[in-house]
Amino acid sequence: MRRWTFTKGHGTENDFVVLLDRDGVLDLTPAVARFLCDRRAGIGGDGVLRAVFRSHMGELAGPTAEAEGAVWFMDYRNADGSVAEMCGNGVRVFARFLLDQCVATGPVIPIATRAGVRTATIQRDGQIKVAMGPVQVGPDPVRVRTADGQEFSAVPADVGNPHAVSFCTDLERLSLHTAPTYDTAAFPEGVNLEFVERLGAGHLAMRVFERGSGETRSCGTGVVAAAAVARSIEVNSASGPAVYRVDVPGGVVTVELDTDQAYLTGPAVLVAHGEVAIPEDVFSPEVFSP
Amino acid sequence: MRRWTFTKGHGTENDFVVLLDRDGVLDLTPAVARFLCDRRAGIGGDGVLRAVFRSHMGELAGPTAEAEGAVWFMDYRNADGSVAEMCGNGVRVFARFLLDQCVATGPVIPIATRAGVRTATIQRDGQIKVAMGPVQVGPDPVRVRTADGQEFSAVPADVGNPHAVSFCTDLERLSLHTAPTYDTAAFPEGVNLEFVERLGAGHLAMRVFERGSGETRSCGTGVVAAAAVARSIEVNSASGPAVYRVDVPGGVVTVELDTDQAYLTGPAVLVAHGEVAIPEDVFSPEVFSP
Repeated sequence: MRRWTFTKGHGTENDFVVLLDRDGVLDLTPAVARFLCDRRAGIGGDGVLRAVFRSHMGELAGPTAEAEGAVWFMDYRNADGSVAEMCGNGVRVFARFLLDQCVATGPVIPIATRAGVRTATIQRDGQIKVAMGPVQVGPDPVRVRTADGQEFSAVPADVGNPHAVSFCTDLERLSLHTAPTYDTAAFPEGVNLEFVERLGAGHLAMRVFERGSGETRSCGTGVVAAAAVARSIEVNSASGPAVYRVDVPGGVVTVELDTDQAYLTGPAVLVAHGEVAIPEDVFSPEVFSP
Repeated sequence: MRRWTFTKGHGTENDFVVLLDRDGVLDLTPAVARFLCDRRAGIGGDGVLRAVFRSHMGELAGPTAEAEGAVWFMDYRNADGSVAEMCGNGVRVFARFLLDQCVATGPVIPIATRAGVRTATIQRDGQIKVAMGPVQVGPDPVRVRTADGQEFSAVPADVGNPHAVSFCTDLERLSLHTAPTYDTAAFPEGVNLEFVERLGAGHLAMRVFERGSGETRSCGTGVVAAAAVARSIEVNSASGPAVYRVDVPGGVVTVELDTDQAYLTGPAVLVAHGEVAIPEDVFSPEVFSP
């Protein structure tokens, strides 16, 4: 049995087990990540965020991390134990965690990730704003079909990962229990499917079907994709920045679209803090398979 | 914000948030129970187990609890905030928690519940055995139909709550994603549906569709019902006690059937211990609805 200190937190109900591991000594194997994220046999989460000093991560932290002032590296793991580059909601929770642990001071916190440095800025109201990088909209629309037989012409968008955004008029009744189908030739590595309803000027509601996960409560890159596509098909889209409020099942976030950068602002909540007991056999990956 | 100390544990992956509240002073409203059990915005669990001194509970602890030596009362809440009488897997986790907190000594721990005193006995191998009360099998079989069109003749059984047990030959492929249908006139208050495959003499595999929950990883009263029905239709069922090993998706338990009593033996694991931060507005029940 090994006992690790953990924090559990979420950003619009995208939830994480967070570990402070200054010197990168924790044996965070895929099996341990799966155990921590197991909602019944473990703690439960969509992923694990591990905070390691950037200086310990070498090239993994990226060539510019030191110059950009990133003291911490966010080591992100999916609930299935695999490594992921970045997570928009996770960065906010990670920033909140660093503040809570008194190992960073705000309001601006550059964070090294496998996708480069992401800068989190604490807002006056406690929300956290994260620079998400540029968004690429297009090229051609793709046909998407939901289980209830509705067909959509979805606009592709790239936010470091692939998205396809469909607009609809009755979002709540959309059937996302089973996977929508789409032209797999257009997205050989899979795609996140966003379904968006316009609620007013600069106000969207969104549901998302994430590749490998199914419908989730929120998706950080997904809301950025939704806002960028909404803007691209509105009049005078080229003129200056645009701000969108996006309501997702897990809460409300704000997307600002600037020329070469998208910003995602939203809440980050730390729910619990404690010690988790990890059975010794979990550290033999072949033994633990929940 | 209120900070409560909590433990998270599970018995065959039926999981609980456990609270030590000696004097019954915690304001455990339905909204707080829902918050604690929320798997994304809270900690996550199938229910909440609160440990209160029996002497504070008055008549709720039952007329014989003091005479039977029950020092602790198990206040059980479902994840939806409602009160429930008893939980077979929960009692084991509760007993393990009392030992872990050094507020009870084994090997025999009588526990007061709303369904009367349940006695937990710690086994030499660390498993915990709980006296579950008598089981009533019958009367007439009821027709049950799963979503994939299979029909079963299910035998009713009462373990303090209603069950209907069906036998099948290919348990793994059974479709329990959507609710099976049954003759609702026979069970006006709903029923838990067990599906059982015989793996050998005294060895069953079981899946369960619980009323109000859907398919779960384990159901304490359900495995007792399954063993009792299996025994009732086997030869010489009236002669003496019988022991069944029951494999459920969340692990393995053992059921012993004695003349007037059934015993359920299985594991109980405490996974994490810490402090949870409950937002003040959760204590206004009308505000928090995840």
